[in-house]
Amino acid sequence: MQSYDSMPKMELAVLLSGLQREYDAVSAKGLKLNMARGKPGADQLDLSLEVLDCINSSESCKAMDGTDCRNYGLLDGIPEAKKLFADMLEVDPSEIIIGGNSSLNMMYDTVARAMTHGIMGSAPWCRLGNVKFLCPSPGYDRHFAICEHFGIEMVAVEMRADGPDMDAVERLVASDASIKGIWCVPKYSNPQGITYSDAVVRRFASLRPAAHDFRIYWDNAYCVHHLTDTPDHLVNILGCCRDCGNEDMVFIYGSTSKISFPGSGVSMMAASKANLDSILGQLAFQSIGPDKLNQLRHVRFFKDLAGIEAHMKKHADILRPKFETVLSCLERDLGGTGLAAWNSPKGGYFISFDTLPGCAKRTVELCKKAGVAITPAGATYPYGHDPLDRNIRIAPTFPPLGELRQAIELLCLCVKIAGAEKLLKQ
Amino acid sequence: MQSYDSMPKMELAVLLSGLQREYDAVSAKGLKLNMARGKPGADQLDLSLEVLDCINSSESCKAMDGTDCRNYGLLDGIPEAKKLFADMLEVDPSEIIIGGNSSLNMMYDTVARAMTHGIMGSAPWCRLGNVKFLCPSPGYDRHFAICEHFGIEMVAVEMRADGPDMDAVERLVASDASIKGIWCVPKYSNPQGITYSDAVVRRFASLRPAAHDFRIYWDNAYCVHHLTDTPDHLVNILGCCRDCGNEDMVFIYGSTSKISFPGSGVSMMAASKANLDSILGQLAFQSIGPDKLNQLRHVRFFKDLAGIEAHMKKHADILRPKFETVLSCLERDLGGTGLAAWNSPKGGYFISFDTLPGCAKRTVELCKKAGVAITPAGATYPYGHDPLDRNIRIAPTFPPLGELRQAIELLCLCVKIAGAEKLLKQ
Repeated sequence: MQSYDSMPKMELAVLLSGLQREYDAVSAKGLKLNMARGKPGADQLDLSLEVLDCINSSESCKAMDGTDCRNYGLLDGIPEAKKLFADMLEVDPSEIIIGGNSSLNMMYDTVARAMTHGIMGSAPWCRLGNVKFLCPSPGYDRHFAICEHFGIEMVAVEMRADGPDMDAVERLVASDASIKGIWCVPKYSNPQGITYSDAVVRRFASLRPAAHDFRIYWDNAYCVHHLTDTPDHLVNILGCCRDCGNEDMVFIYGSTSKISFPGSGVSMMAASKANLDSILGQLAFQSIGPDKLNQLRHVRFFKDLAGIEAHMKKHADILRPKFETVLSCLERDLGGTGLAAWNSPKGGYFISFDTLPGCAKRTVELCKKAGVAITPAGATYPYGHDPLDRNIRIAPTFPPLGELRQAIELLCLCVKIAGAEKLLKQ
Repeated sequence: MQSYDSMPKMELAVLLSGLQREYDAVSAKGLKLNMARGKPGADQLDLSLEVLDCINSSESCKAMDGTDCRNYGLLDGIPEAKKLFADMLEVDPSEIIIGGNSSLNMMYDTVARAMTHGIMGSAPWCRLGNVKFLCPSPGYDRHFAICEHFGIEMVAVEMRADGPDMDAVERLVASDASIKGIWCVPKYSNPQGITYSDAVVRRFASLRPAAHDFRIYWDNAYCVHHLTDTPDHLVNILGCCRDCGNEDMVFIYGSTSKISFPGSGVSMMAASKANLDSILGQLAFQSIGPDKLNQLRHVRFFKDLAGIEAHMKKHADILRPKFETVLSCLERDLGGTGLAAWNSPKGGYFISFDTLPGCAKRTVELCKKAGVAITPAGATYPYGHDPLDRNIRIAPTFPPLGELRQAIELLCLCVKIAGAEKLLKQ
């Protein structure tokens, strides 16, 4: 396809009016499609139905240590759940706490506790003049929202093909003691789908932060969420940190939200024993313990890490055609136009898509008017502000294939319109 | 039985040495009994086994509004759960939020949010010089622990037969703007088992606090937990507050922890719409929503309030003999001795027991040495300090009847020893 950039303006204007007619025709269909969030589709949820059927007698409610999971107790989780999810996150069972149904909640609570009580005895952040987090961007909007909620200043750091710009990260954390954390989705990142390189992980592990309560918030949400048979490999951050004498510097989070059920899964947090001891001492004021029956259901269904991995292949079989549909549509409709760039992730839930600078908001607006909801432009940046106004997060997982195709074709059309409009104004 | 107080010392000394021989004989048995916490027994948990069997197909995961409960969404709960538990707490479905498995967690989170963000726009408590809560005492140790954790100063208020000393409550909240809350277990209170009188509830509803972010933390944990066929009646606090133009002044909490499963129940919070709107705006940063499948399980099993009430009669049938055993043992072994006083609750989970002043700690210590764990003496008071050292919380629900009888007989023996020791020293 011809590059829009190289077209004479007259020709571009004619093209644009054709695109607009096409857009009007699509709009008239009254579409109502949603690609806004990384939700699994109903067929994916059906893969885990047996999770719901694992417990139905008094005897089957007993954990391996004899605990009646229906009753109070076990603040840190049942032993078999700690074992299973420690294997998944590549840590020791003594280095994990099992939570409720939401790892986002565990992250929020970690920050909330730091605000009122500090971290491992440090000063409560609410008493400090200023607290900052580094935010590799584009990134996950709900991470940024936690910072915004607590008035934590966000400092954007550029995301590259192998992870965050580590020169910037090293310089900033070493020089500024008000920088208390950095948000990371290190594997199949949200939204790029990239995995941090070995070198990047090692540079993380050997950081020398000015703040002793600085932590890496390592949201390993997509640790087993491969789309291909040649999965990315992520180096074990806790092990690396330990090798560098930095074992207290990382909080790792995970969940089964996109393994079993987004609303009714199991979440977990891993860290050094010193960190966990401190956290458990605080958690004891908040709760008598998370839902142990749901932990037990998950262990009974998945059995072990191999069980989880086999299960994830079934998810991949459902998701792969969706990602392929998006990518082939993008290539067919936008390839060679010079209007957009995107990545081809090997896992995770998103495709990161860049329009021409200044065109993301307009594109999302056009999609919305025609009945297709997309994550708001800017959402992948701190404060919802994409300085170049170009990044769009495509979430292909929830719509059925037919709807997804319609939605992406509309997106491509809107990208062309927004791009042509921009080029005509130049 | 003869009053210990009126015995000649010589006689009392002989009696004590007999009691001590008896104690040594019991100690030699190596008992290992636990009456420390208000845990339901295994037979009670079996009453709700069918909760676990209500959902096992894709179709059965749908809420009445079509929501797939397995997936993300519905921060405030599914409509049918809001209806059921609104009925239980006597509020409107628009006045309730369904939470996770722990109402304690909802209370903790309410206070944690107030610390960092205030209440309905008030100044964050962490920025104030001093924040105080009124604590009717004896009361629930985990309420007091939340205050202690957040550095909130606790001001004890005397509990009477019809509820807290309302003269003191009215005077304190009207005169001191640093008093931001009061903890209440208004029905079958923990540990007394008393229910606030109509007059007390109305005086609560018409409080005129100096602090506009003062709230009544109304933990209605035992709202349907009757032991008799002539249940106590508690006046509806939210309705009364509304009548007094004070509808924003109360946060109500409840759960199914002692209806279905302590570890895997459903919790809820009720309040005015203005309060809930503010809270939901904050909750959106913490979570995408609680476990909706567990809500659905509960609604499918209980169906409606009548279903819950019928279910609670089965609990009462199991619990009544335990309470009767305790009360008849106490009467038989301690009646007329002048060494103790206790109440006969018509519901809830506890019996509040008073030794002679100065004897509670010694009694609990003697029990512990002989193998019976009891809630630590003092736990029912702020900072664990019972000024008269006399209150002990008896939790009769968890042990099987035979074990319970042994435990109470030992308790009575220890009360006599501690009492005799004290009288001999006078």
